[in-house]
Amino acid sequence: MSTHNRLLRVGMVGYAFMGAAHSQAWRTVNRVYDLPARVRMSLICGRDSGKVAEAADRLGWEGHTTDWRRLVESDDVDVVDICTPGDSHCEIAIAALAAGKHVLCEKPLANTVEEARVMAVAAARARADGVRAMCGFNYRRVPAVTMMRQLIADGRLGVIRHVRAAYLQDWIVDPQFPLVWRLQKDRAGSGALGDIGAHIIDLTQYVTGQRITGVSALTETFVKERPLPAGSSGLAAQADGNGRAMGTVTVDDAAVFVARLDGGALATYEASRFATGRKNALRVEINGSLGTVVFDLERLNELEFYDATRPAAEQGFTRILVTEGEHPYMSAWWPPGHIIGYEHSFTHQMRDFVEAIATGTDPAPSFADALQVQLVLDAVTRSAGLDSRWTEVEPTLAELAA
Amino acid sequence: MSTHNRLLRVGMVGYAFMGAAHSQAWRTVNRVYDLPARVRMSLICGRDSGKVAEAADRLGWEGHTTDWRRLVESDDVDVVDICTPGDSHCEIAIAALAAGKHVLCEKPLANTVEEARVMAVAAARARADGVRAMCGFNYRRVPAVTMMRQLIADGRLGVIRHVRAAYLQDWIVDPQFPLVWRLQKDRAGSGALGDIGAHIIDLTQYVTGQRITGVSALTETFVKERPLPAGSSGLAAQADGNGRAMGTVTVDDAAVFVARLDGGALATYEASRFATGRKNALRVEINGSLGTVVFDLERLNELEFYDATRPAAEQGFTRILVTEGEHPYMSAWWPPGHIIGYEHSFTHQMRDFVEAIATGTDPAPSFADALQVQLVLDAVTRSAGLDSRWTEVEPTLAELAA
Amino acid sequence: MSTHNRLLRVGMVGYAFMGAAHSQAWRTVNRVYDLPARVRMSLICGRDSGKVAEAADRLGWEGHTTDWRRLVESDDVDVVDICTPGDSHCEIAIAALAAGKHVLCEKPLANTVEEARVMAVAAARARADGVRAMCGFNYRRVPAVTMMRQLIADGRLGVIRHVRAAYLQDWIVDPQFPLVWRLQKDRAGSGALGDIGAHIIDLTQYVTGQRITGVSALTETFVKERPLPAGSSGLAAQADGNGRAMGTVTVDDAAVFVARLDGGALATYEASRFATGRKNALRVEINGSLGTVVFDLERLNELEFYDATRPAAEQGFTRILVTEGEHPYMSAWWPPGHIIGYEHSFTHQMRDFVEAIATGTDPAPSFADALQVQLVLDAVTRSAGLDSRWTEVEPTLAELAA
Amino acid sequence: MSTHNRLLRVGMVGYAFMGAAHSQAWRTVNRVYDLPARVRMSLICGRDSGKVAEAADRLGWEGHTTDWRRLVESDDVDVVDICTPGDSHCEIAIAALAAGKHVLCEKPLANTVEEARVMAVAAARARADGVRAMCGFNYRRVPAVTMMRQLIADGRLGVIRHVRAAYLQDWIVDPQFPLVWRLQKDRAGSGALGDIGAHIIDLTQYVTGQRITGVSALTETFVKERPLPAGSSGLAAQADGNGRAMGTVTVDDAAVFVARLDGGALATYEASRFATGRKNALRVEINGSLGTVVFDLERLNELEFYDATRPAAEQGFTRILVTEGEHPYMSAWWPPGHIIGYEHSFTHQMRDFVEAIATGTDPAPSFADALQVQLVLDAVTRSAGLDSRWTEVEPTLAELAA
Repeated sequence: MSTHNRLLRVGMVGYAFMGAAHSQAWRTVNRVYDLPARVRMSLICGRDSGKVAEAADRLGWEGHTTDWRRLVESDDVDVVDICTPGDSHCEIAIAALAAGKHVLCEKPLANTVEEARVMAVAAARARADGVRAMCGFNYRRVPAVTMMRQLIADGRLGVIRHVRAAYLQDWIVDPQFPLVWRLQKDRAGSGALGDIGAHIIDLTQYVTGQRITGVSALTETFVKERPLPAGSSGLAAQADGNGRAMGTVTVDDAAVFVARLDGGALATYEASRFATGRKNALRVEINGSLGTVVFDLERLNELEFYDATRPAAEQGFTRILVTEGEHPYMSAWWPPGHIIGYEHSFTHQMRDFVEAIATGTDPAPSFADALQVQLVLDAVTRSAGLDSRWTEVEPTLAELAA
Repeated sequence: MSTHNRLLRVGMVGYAFMGAAHSQAWRTVNRVYDLPARVRMSLICGRDSGKVAEAADRLGWEGHTTDWRRLVESDDVDVVDICTPGDSHCEIAIAALAAGKHVLCEKPLANTVEEARVMAVAAARARADGVRAMCGFNYRRVPAVTMMRQLIADGRLGVIRHVRAAYLQDWIVDPQFPLVWRLQKDRAGSGALGDIGAHIIDLTQYVTGQRITGVSALTETFVKERPLPAGSSGLAAQADGNGRAMGTVTVDDAAVFVARLDGGALATYEASRFATGRKNALRVEINGSLGTVVFDLERLNELEFYDATRPAAEQGFTRILVTEGEHPYMSAWWPPGHIIGYEHSFTHQMRDFVEAIATGTDPAPSFADALQVQLVLDAVTRSAGLDSRWTEVEPTLAELAA
Repeated sequence: MSTHNRLLRVGMVGYAFMGAAHSQAWRTVNRVYDLPARVRMSLICGRDSGKVAEAADRLGWEGHTTDWRRLVESDDVDVVDICTPGDSHCEIAIAALAAGKHVLCEKPLANTVEEARVMAVAAARARADGVRAMCGFNYRRVPAVTMMRQLIADGRLGVIRHVRAAYLQDWIVDPQFPLVWRLQKDRAGSGALGDIGAHIIDLTQYVTGQRITGVSALTETFVKERPLPAGSSGLAAQADGNGRAMGTVTVDDAAVFVARLDGGALATYEASRFATGRKNALRVEINGSLGTVVFDLERLNELEFYDATRPAAEQGFTRILVTEGEHPYMSAWWPPGHIIGYEHSFTHQMRDFVEAIATGTDPAPSFADALQVQLVLDAVTRSAGLDSRWTEVEPTLAELAA
Repeated sequence: MSTHNRLLRVGMVGYAFMGAAHSQAWRTVNRVYDLPARVRMSLICGRDSGKVAEAADRLGWEGHTTDWRRLVESDDVDVVDICTPGDSHCEIAIAALAAGKHVLCEKPLANTVEEARVMAVAAARARADGVRAMCGFNYRRVPAVTMMRQLIADGRLGVIRHVRAAYLQDWIVDPQFPLVWRLQKDRAGSGALGDIGAHIIDLTQYVTGQRITGVSALTETFVKERPLPAGSSGLAAQADGNGRAMGTVTVDDAAVFVARLDGGALATYEASRFATGRKNALRVEINGSLGTVVFDLERLNELEFYDATRPAAEQGFTRILVTEGEHPYMSAWWPPGHIIGYEHSFTHQMRDFVEAIATGTDPAPSFADALQVQLVLDAVTRSAGLDSRWTEVEPTLAELAA
């Protein structure tokens, strides 16, 4: 690691699921990849002083604080990693960029288009000063997904005809599952749509190199009242038949929509937390005039590729085990056939972000890219609210400027 | 077969793909099932006298004719089996019913709602005279599909939350594939939508016991001009750059739509002939509050069932090989694990139709059921024509009457 | 079928499982394939006069008899199809050949090497008079299996290194399953070994074009006493604790062996009726220096092919849906993706046998080929009886003569 | 991590593939699991001073040395982790145990039974002083494998009838692949047999709770001469046709054997580096009288379970995604459906080893367990050398003493 001639001190806000995943990635990235900078896990921030101290100790951060403003302004922090719920992304990111810190922000970029637009503008301005900003659509860095993009970019699929994307989970099928923050609009912005729908919107646009131009959508909240979680406050409560405090679910349980892409493809999208048995089933199939690719996050080391240019009798879906040294990100890991897991996508993300910072290049997806995803989410929400009327996706700043 | 105290003489109109499949089924049904009637393959009808004679010889029909009216009115025919393109279904069926013949009509029932409605009315009237009519949605008789319906009817899936259905083929991806009758609106009514979309509409409504109430749809014709097939006539031709006679594709290559079912479920549907690598990929997944079922026609002997009432650590998708004697239709076939093929669904269909006729019961799907599918197809077409506007499915006769 | 200038009248001995499967194939073969001869289902023979009459009626045979000698000598029979248990194959086949009848004999050819050798000699002699004999290893005619052979013959796998074959069933896992004829050595010759092990021996030798040279084997009878079936006679009975008549299982429940092939490959074979959950799981994998093929009879429409000459990043197991017109036997059936079933392998077998007879060519597998399989079975049995000692497969007549 | 009242300082010998995998595990274990001891990565040892210094920096070890004896005797080391080729395991382990250090030794335990026996005796003696020794059969800690063991231990499979195990790789199919240390008997002890065959021997004995009693085996070296690797020395070289230095492969490329287990099961085992397309395909199927389990290391997050006590029509192979909090080791990782990778098995292994040390309990597999695996390997080698003669596995010390 003698080549690590630069130190990047990271400050992370949030220490729950995403905080743990990011910590594992920050801890690992220099151990696996030979990078032009060395990461230091300097400071972690959370609202509860006891819990954040415990998290710092467990996850391996040198310091901790309950004041994110202190973290953002600290002289010991070069990079701010935002792992909080969506309602605080904007304020933290704006402050961090203003303080000249590189920013990695979890997806979705914000809870509203307005916030996302402000963030994208701020990131564009900070870029002039060499400050880098990136949104954490980590699944772009699953090797099989990166490979999908390469195959399509290389023309192996020909003209894209269909996009078929679903991100299915089932963790709230039980009506007794409590009203956690992800089910509250003011915290999470939306439900399945923004949480997991955002992933398939970004992923399919990324791999096809095309953008969604319009949508026709339905959303549904199957279970409208849920028990309040223990220790919850600030939620309007009402008692159910058993005297248990109940609250109203203010986000979608599921969203489905049809769409068109600017390259002419028809698309179907579905995000649901009510797909019983589907735990983390992000599934994407892209049909082109020359071939097809299929990906399933529950088997993320595999990519299915149908090459219609092969002899007719030998055509079929080839299950490629994406663990060869030739595959994206994989030369640093284990021998072929030794699979990687969910968390590795974050390590790959950190690698690319660190490289971008160290080499002064633009990381992707940018905040502008993430704003565009937000605009798609917004079009879906508007369509669903207008009896599934066809709704065009609004242009981003760049498209307006062009 | 001493119990076969009744003879059913079948006359079939059409001898192409469907004619061959039906012939195999009529030939087999008494050999496999013990039925209250014995089938006789009496008469086959086609427009080309040489070809229909050859087909009669090859497929095993006793007589042949080029005049479907003669077949319909023949005293030697008890059952009329209609295997022609959709534009002739109505006329033949009406005549057959008027002649007091039982009618099996291939799907889709007709090319228009108007025709379908006339047919449903005629069937309802003929029923009073003990005449039976049935539409050939043969996939209902794939044992795994029948089992899906049973599981749902038994409450094993709980409340249905999601229907996810696609019927994907790829036989016209090549722009040089000629303009066959299935690509002409006046013959086929519609394209992928009516040909294969009709199957998934019927199948999902059948297994869930619910009906689609409204849709929001997109359709697309990716390749708008195609070479005329050899010997075609009556098609407006124009020359392409190579002087080859080209004609306009007048049906959809693909249709996608979101929908709601009357039990509260959200649904996505897709029918396409441009899904490269998917040959006959009818795939249906139904998510309920207690479980999920998944079916894939390319592996039609299998049914995946997720039972969320099992202990948490043992839940998973169970691949049931639907070849046990306990499974629908299977006790007559081979030992467990010895799979059946596509054509068997027709044998099962003939079994049920013969039993219905012999026992004087109503076969399903009735013409009224098939009319309702036609109404869904119509709603899809109208929605797609109105910028994917939300479009309610019109009520059938029965619903109007109720 | 005007080209059918020759009539082949078939007489079949046996009407149980194999009889029903063969009947379906005889009934279908001329309806699907354009053949130089037309088959007539003339006569069926069984020991029980009532049952054979019922079978003739149900399965569609013109006549029936309880005397196989009458069938064999009938002037109305050109082809004798032997579907009885193994203990009667030799006598019937010898008589049929002597009577100048073409013979199709179910596998395994015989219960002993001695019988098989007599049959092979008789067939070789009859051949001089234009009489054809073939053994019914029907799985050779599963299109995916035929395709495996073609790929290997074309050098697509390079040098064969490994054969991995198992035929797993589970129908006698329950110790209360009765002592049917297949569990009696005097009727069946052996147990899992001859019944299903014979299939994988033939299949792997067929697709590789190589022969097993020696084996080291273990066999086991897990359940040694079973209830006598209702109406059984001639079996030494003893009462169990509940006073139920029990008999001794005299065949193997399972056989496993390692082997060498004459091309240098190592092989493992396993045949079992105790593989819980495996219903008809004939699985074969062949690894060569350039590629691998994998087949599973429970998904018989699929073939997996790994082509190691493809670019490294794109290598993988290609799931070929063997339903294209380009695939063996398939142009006569349905459009791509419309799968076939178990019984179709028999139709293909009948096609090839009819063609061989009509064109005066040698059908395969010959009785000599089947004798060689018998010699492998014999080597397995001997090895298992000698503490799994390495045991070479004895040469067949042809090899001795060479 | 305030509960970490004890510090365990680890010294690791070796820094290649296994060294990197172990480093990732040591680095991660306290971040994920709440353990009674805290691990410190103190010292790493390798023969090349430059490379080991680089490895220490990259992998995160505090110090480095080229002298394993110094490491073993260091006062700053509590645990010695041996990741070297098999020829040095014995010497290092004996010295470490003698120095009172806990020892984790990679598999196979040694290159010979003699060495393994010495090591097992040493470990047994050291145990009296509270010193812990464990062999690194890490696949026992794949959650799906641990779950297999639990299901079998709970009686869910009933009486075990069959074990079917293969560990297939293909990294030396190319005859030009060089003669690395793993292909040299004096370094590696054996080839595929000891490297990967040892894993399936241990794994199947672990999950069944049974031991292999005897074997009949074949081994093969398909490619007998290979190019010497760059910079190799000490190998007898000879020139090939192109004047390239070639050496003799002195280990097996593949080993296959049939076996019996002490509970009455028949088994087949196969280890190969010539199974084209199989990258890291450790596959195990266990059939019992009540059920079956199937595991595939390339999809290590999944376990297939067939439960024959379910209703007949619903039986099937259930694909359990072993990512629930209820599953072994998984509550510490990500939400359900978020898969883990190969390396996690090492983290789990370190967790159990750290817990055993901290709580003063015996870790498993012990050196005696690993000696027993060595005895099976030895029986396989002897059988293969004696024309695949049936060869009983020699008893271990414990069995002799009993």
